[in-house]
Amino acid sequence: MSPTPSPVPMSVEALNALLEQVGAPWVRALGLEVVATGNERTTLRMPVGPALVHGGGVLCGQAILAAADTAMVLALSAALGAFRPMTTVQLQTSFLRPVPADAGELHVVCTVLRRGRSLAFGEVEICTADGRLAAHATTTYALL
Amino acid sequence: MSPTPSPVPMSVEALNALLEQVGAPWVRALGLEVVATGNERTTLRMPVGPALVHGGGVLCGQAILAAADTAMVLALSAALGAFRPMTTVQLQTSFLRPVPADAGELHVVCTVLRRGRSLAFGEVEICTADGRLAAHATTTYALL
Amino acid sequence: MSPTPSPVPMSVEALNALLEQVGAPWVRALGLEVVATGNERTTLRMPVGPALVHGGGVLCGQAILAAADTAMVLALSAALGAFRPMTTVQLQTSFLRPVPADAGELHVVCTVLRRGRSLAFGEVEICTADGRLAAHATTTYALL
Amino acid sequence: MSPTPSPVPMSVEALNALLEQVGAPWVRALGLEVVATGNERTTLRMPVGPALVHGGGVLCGQAILAAADTAMVLALSAALGAFRPMTTVQLQTSFLRPVPADAGELHVVCTVLRRGRSLAFGEVEICTADGRLAAHATTTYALL
Repeated sequence: MSPTPSPVPMSVEALNALLEQVGAPWVRALGLEVVATGNERTTLRMPVGPALVHGGGVLCGQAILAAADTAMVLALSAALGAFRPMTTVQLQTSFLRPVPADAGELHVVCTVLRRGRSLAFGEVEICTADGRLAAHATTTYALL
Repeated sequence: MSPTPSPVPMSVEALNALLEQVGAPWVRALGLEVVATGNERTTLRMPVGPALVHGGGVLCGQAILAAADTAMVLALSAALGAFRPMTTVQLQTSFLRPVPADAGELHVVCTVLRRGRSLAFGEVEICTADGRLAAHATTTYALL
Repeated sequence: MSPTPSPVPMSVEALNALLEQVGAPWVRALGLEVVATGNERTTLRMPVGPALVHGGGVLCGQAILAAADTAMVLALSAALGAFRPMTTVQLQTSFLRPVPADAGELHVVCTVLRRGRSLAFGEVEICTADGRLAAHATTTYALL
Repeated sequence: MSPTPSPVPMSVEALNALLEQVGAPWVRALGLEVVATGNERTTLRMPVGPALVHGGGVLCGQAILAAADTAMVLALSAALGAFRPMTTVQLQTSFLRPVPADAGELHVVCTVLRRGRSLAFGEVEICTADGRLAAHATTTYALL
């Protein structure tokens, strides 16, 4: 018996259209954009604009949390070959370094660690443009 | 040697002013509002508006993550008697039930579990108006 | 349509027999013992013996992690009215205070936060005999 | 101003001696052994013996939790060039696949993601001998 073949992953364009179509307006305001994708890994960029900077002069952690959750939905849709209803079970995020207000943009790299029948696991690395890890997240999704 | 006396906690008004002053504009757009506070526990409400609803017709998880992080900053400021620079070390959130688009508002209850010299730990319960737990978070903060 | 009635929870004796029967020998060596149970909450005690103390003179964190995972299996079996095959999806533990080698025993209190069809969520408080919170865990289980 | 040079990492032998010296007896019973180390990454092996197998016929999750915590202490000691007092702040573990009782041994690979002045962050991959990821953990340590 051969293993189930991997589905054809969604294109960058299809993922960006999906985000536009199903993302909540408040989340779409983050300006996240898929820049690369594949069966296991999907990368987004997020501009560090003034609306995301808090009184301490650095990127607010809430934007990082939201980016991690969004990245996993898109990476999983890419891996599945299509959007399927799914729900976040849990998201754990560690904040390693503050992101300065003038960081320009962040890279959000989501790797699907395991895709089971009903549960999927992922890891998200959030890096500044110089490649330094700013935050790291792990997450579980239930496929409905 | 007697233990350090607890500081006078901040008022509801002072906490809402703090959120207005230091919150990133994108976070303030959530409409979070402190409704009760004390030395150990601070409660916020968050309206479930259409900007927070995703294509599946329920509240986006990203809003819950952002609410949990915001609640902890305010609860900790309340417990400390004043805002102090702090940074999120980690936030773990579990999503127990979807929140329907017509839920009206959520209650976000943050309890400070431990306030050490350099680290503080908290727990956040996110409930619908009928008191059912929709999400549960635990978090660590570094006091700078 | 009325909600499914809660099953009759397992007794303290039945839970201790279950632990003896299905626990791995290395886990049983912890000496965990169920002391109270109910539909939503199950409490265990764990003796702080010398085999659990590391070179720093305090209880090793590994014992706390193992106690939290074990407590959730038992609390969930109690709530379900019988042992059912299940698997840990994730466990997040925060360590709030060191537990001294002479602490005597710990109380491990597990609350089932939500019991769904396929996933269950729990919270575990690990306290010293004086009631101080030493560690706090949240966990997700898949019911098979 | 040049960055602080990385210390000379501890040898495999020194790390195994450290584990023997500071590990709690109950943790040492796991039979963990360091097999490779470096400034950023330290790898242990753990035999899957019958004392670690629960009634369901697979490796107990408690052993995985304990291995992850132990690996991080050793990886961090390696990176610091010597053992320093430290304490686990939090450990989040996701369980991706059950480990069969006849798996032989596990590889526990710990990567130090960031080593700050007072906090350090790590990631632990627990794999079976065929390289499949069985569990994944992230952790925070406070350097005392």
